[in-house]
Formats: sequence, C-alpha cells, structure tokens
Amino acid sequence: MSDRFVSDEVITKLASEASGLNASGGNLRVKKIVNRLLADLFRAIDDLDIQMDEVWAAVAYIGEAAKSNELGLIVPGIALEHFLDLRLDEAERRAGVIGTTTRTIEGPLYIAGAPMSDGYARLDDGLDDGEVLFMEGQVKDVSGKPVGGAVVDVWHCNTMGFYSHFGPEQTPYNLRRRIKTGADGKYSFRSIMPSGYGVPPGGNTDKLMCLLGRHGQRPAHIHFFITAPGYRQLTTQINIADDKYLHEDFAFGTREGLIPEIERVSDSAEFKSKELNRPFAKINFDFAIAKETKGLVDTIVHRERASV
Amino acid sequence: MSDRFVSDEVITKLASEASGLNASGGNLRVKKIVNRLLADLFRAIDDLDIQMDEVWAAVAYIGEAAKSNELGLIVPGIALEHFLDLRLDEAERRAGVIGTTTRTIEGPLYIAGAPMSDGYARLDDGLDDGEVLFMEGQVKDVSGKPVGGAVVDVWHCNTMGFYSHFGPEQTPYNLRRRIKTGADGKYSFRSIMPSGYGVPPGGNTDKLMCLLGRHGQRPAHIHFFITAPGYRQLTTQINIADDKYLHEDFAFGTREGLIPEIERVSDSAEFKSKELNRPFAKINFDFAIAKETKGLVDTIVHRERASV
Repeated sequence: MSDRFVSDEVITKLASEASGLNASGGNLRVKKIVNRLLADLFRAIDDLDIQMDEVWAAVAYIGEAAKSNELGLIVPGIALEHFLDLRLDEAERRAGVIGTTTRTIEGPLYIAGAPMSDGYARLDDGLDDGEVLFMEGQVKDVSGKPVGGAVVDVWHCNTMGFYSHFGPEQTPYNLRRRIKTGADGKYSFRSIMPSGYGVPPGGNTDKLMCLLGRHGQRPAHIHFFITAPGYRQLTTQINIADDKYLHEDFAFGTREGLIPEIERVSDSAEFKSKELNRPFAKINFDFAIAKETKGLVDTIVHRERASV
Repeated sequence: MSDRFVSDEVITKLASEASGLNASGGNLRVKKIVNRLLADLFRAIDDLDIQMDEVWAAVAYIGEAAKSNELGLIVPGIALEHFLDLRLDEAERRAGVIGTTTRTIEGPLYIAGAPMSDGYARLDDGLDDGEVLFMEGQVKDVSGKPVGGAVVDVWHCNTMGFYSHFGPEQTPYNLRRRIKTGADGKYSFRSIMPSGYGVPPGGNTDKLMCLLGRHGQRPAHIHFFITAPGYRQLTTQINIADDKYLHEDFAFGTREGLIPEIERVSDSAEFKSKELNRPFAKINFDFAIAKETKGLVDTIVHRERASV
C-alpha cells in the first residue's frame, strides 16, 4: 500500500531482528516461522491501520480464551484444523496414498484409554434415554481386504451434547470405547444417538462467532481414530444425516463421504430381537485405511489432550 | 509457491468463510481483520510446510503463556509493541505533530492510582539501599513553554529488578508516584537507581527467546506517562546510560533521545546538603508534549492493566 506507515524495509528488518534470524543459537525452524508470522502481522497491521487498542483487545481476547480453555474450540472454529486436514490430504495424494476414508478434524475432546473390547462394545451406560443406535462395519485396506487387529477408537456426546469427562458428570468413559476387529475386520457397537451442540454460550468462542456473524453449532457426529499395526492412523467423524446444521458445521468438520444413511428399524420383531421395546437406528459404515508409507508425514498428531 | 499444497483460491475462500465475510451480522471491522490474518496464516503454513504438530505446539505455547500472564511480556519481546509506536510516530508526523519527546513502550507493569503530589515526590520507601537518584526537569510544550498542571506519572523497579505490586512484596506503590507541575512546568523526585532485569527464568517468554537465540533482558529504565489537560499523553521511558544491555533491550524499548546523561555527585558538601552521607546520581530530563490535535488517533491506550 502506498500510504503504509512503516516501510517494507523497516518491517523486514524489525521482524528479522525480533525473530533472532541473524542471532546465533536457538532453533532455526522456530526463527523462520516466527519471522514469517511477525512480518505478515506487521504488514497486516499497517495495511488495515489496526490501532493499538485493537491489538491490545486481541491480546486480551487470546488471554481470556486460553484461560477458559477455549483455544481448542477456536482452532477448529476458524477453520485452521480443517485447513491442516486439506494439507494432509494433498500430501497423501502426492505420495500415492489414495482410496482411504476421508479424514476430518479430531476436535478437542478426545480422551485416551477408553475400555477395549473385541469386535463389539456397548458405549452408553443406559442412563441416557436417547434413541438406540447400532453401528457396524468393517475396517479394510484400500484394496478392500479386511484389516484384523485394527482398533476402532470411538467417542461421541450424549443427547444433551455433553462428552464424558467434560461438562456435567457422567459415568467414566461413557460413550467412549475401543473395539478391536477380528480377522474379518468387523466392528459393531450399541450406543445412543448423539445430539448436535454449540460452543459454551457467552464464552470466548461464542463471542468471536458473534463478531463474525457466525454461529457456534456443530451437527451431531461420532468421532473415530482407526489404527492398526503397519497402517496410517485415520482420524475422522461421521455425521448424523438429519441434523439441521449438517452442512453448516462451525468447525468445518462435515465432509463428503462421511454422512452415512441412517436406517430406522421399527419392525417390532427386529427390535425385540435386540432386546429392545422400541424402534432403533442403524448405521453401516466401513473404514478404509492405508499402509504406512515411509517418509510421508505421520497422521498421528501430538497435541495437548485432556486425560482422566 | 508452485508446490503449495492448498491453492490460493481455496485459501481465499476458506478464510473468507471462516471470518464470516459474506455472512450478515457481526462486526465488519473484526471480520476484515480476521479474514486477513487467517489468509496470511494459511499461506504461511503452506509456504513453510508447517506441520500439524507444530501448529498444536504453538497453540499449547500460547495457552501456557496466557495462563502464566506472560502475553504482556511477549508482545514487547516480539517487537510488536515497538512496531505500534513506529506507526503512531508516523501518524503524528503526517499530522504535523513534531518536536515532542520520543515515545516508547509502556510495558505490562503500570498500576494506576499512585500517590499524587505537587512538584516533588520521594518515590522509594527507604528500605532499598540502592544508589540515591535525584531526577528533575520540566514539562514543556513543543515551542519550549512550560506546561503547568501536567502530571508526571513515574514508575520503575527496585535494585532487584522488581516492581511494587508484582513479584516479592514491597510497600504499596513503592517507586510509583504522580507529580504535578506548577506554573513553571517543573517536576523533581528522589528515588533509587533501578536495576535492569530479565523475563522470568524458565517462563514462556524466556523459552521463546531461547528458541530465537535471543535473551530476555531489559536495561535499567524509568517509565513515564506525561499528561496535561489539552495535551496528547506521552508514554515513554528513560534509560540508565551505563547498563550493559542499553542497546540490546529485548523489548525494543531503547530509543534515541531517551538516554540522559547521569551526573554522579561525590562532593560531600553537596550530598550533605541533600541530607545524604554518600554520593548520589543526578539526571536532568525535560519532556516535550504536544497539544491535542482533533481527528488524530489518541495516544491513550486502552489495555488490560493490573490494579491494586
């Protein structure tokens, strides 16, 4: 911009100095990244004539969001987590990794160490009177062969939109299980239909979404990590097809190929055979995972996670 | 970059959607700023091939820094606070505001409401056996005329590098005073010579500085807000000339024109006339402030500050 307050030259010099680019010692990778981000930030401030009060309001906002543990919501809310998925998709495509189930964001609510069982698990503790859901399918490789010994690590929220270990107390690991496939690659589980939910009302993510004229709602979904020895981990979700926010996920998590059909079973003989006294929902979904490829960036993400 | 993983078009679209640019409602200014920062960030991530783990490490870093209340140290440490000063300098220059004392950063340790007195104050509580410092001067307008009724709001750290109300307990408002000038514009105070200091060892600012191959030291300095009705507030510092970090302030606060000469007075008649039994230091420094200019951005910054 012609009327920039600070010249490009001064910005380049200041960012370079502040990032220690010419200092010995330190970590060259961090220096390079900080240098780029700082120079970008300085230019953005000058181009948009961002005022001191605006910068300090942003700093205060980040501070509050961090203190209320909402950074993990804001990252998906600004599409950053989804953007990282797009990049990983492309890295895999270039490496010839194709035919896998579409990935999508992990979100901030995974807890490691859920109970493990073989082939089948019931996820819910029976205390939530939601619609009963039976989900089943196969873990396969990209050629369609079953993958035995794969682990389907599944987690979702209850009918009030809450995850166990976050929000109002639930039975430990409620709606969280790990299911190991047999030689046929099959898994199945019984659970309850999760609800959609929104970011905490009045919290920092909510405030940002309001300022952006957006909402903070997620359509109902179920999270999965699919792992198997020698295979690349798949991080994904399926969406519940009839949610009104299905194609407006504030976290950019809804993706093509991740919206399975829901079958509603109202035949009394069939639901009685499941020892139920009412209709239930059924979802079939197979996961395709790819063999580990040497030299390709890992799909296992290291990030701060809550623990039990 | 030719081998960018995500095209410019996709980045533009995603940033626009995430910032609510096309949504009705919300705050257009926030949308525009968020859109720019997001698009810049996405491009930087793609250009530098920033990995998921690196992004999450940065998010965790910001979270920790916020929780330990170090964002106010990081902002000056990455030269952002100084950069905002450079912009304000230029805005004033373009508006014809010249001849004022050079501004520099406020830093995160101001506390409002220090005791007020007329013409003179003693800043220290007598419990710190540092070198005695007498500082005096005049508040003037840009034509050199004294400004009466100006307030010299001064704060600095003790000989251990600590500010009252931060760090180890000190007498309330120790080394913090407001001194009102008379018709002659004069102010003077007695205090002790402040020490230089560093960011908290092992803290988040320190960690960043280490990664950048930089240090987290500030040379000894004294902070000032100079205010007077009808005049633009001046936020500045003077540096103590003999500090070894004088020209290597990690916070980019040292600026030309802000390093007054220190006179060491060892004549016993003179120090006895001050009721002292040892030599002392003397600094003369005048402040030049400018009349308020309609339509020009204010120099009073609204930011989160600690309070007593």
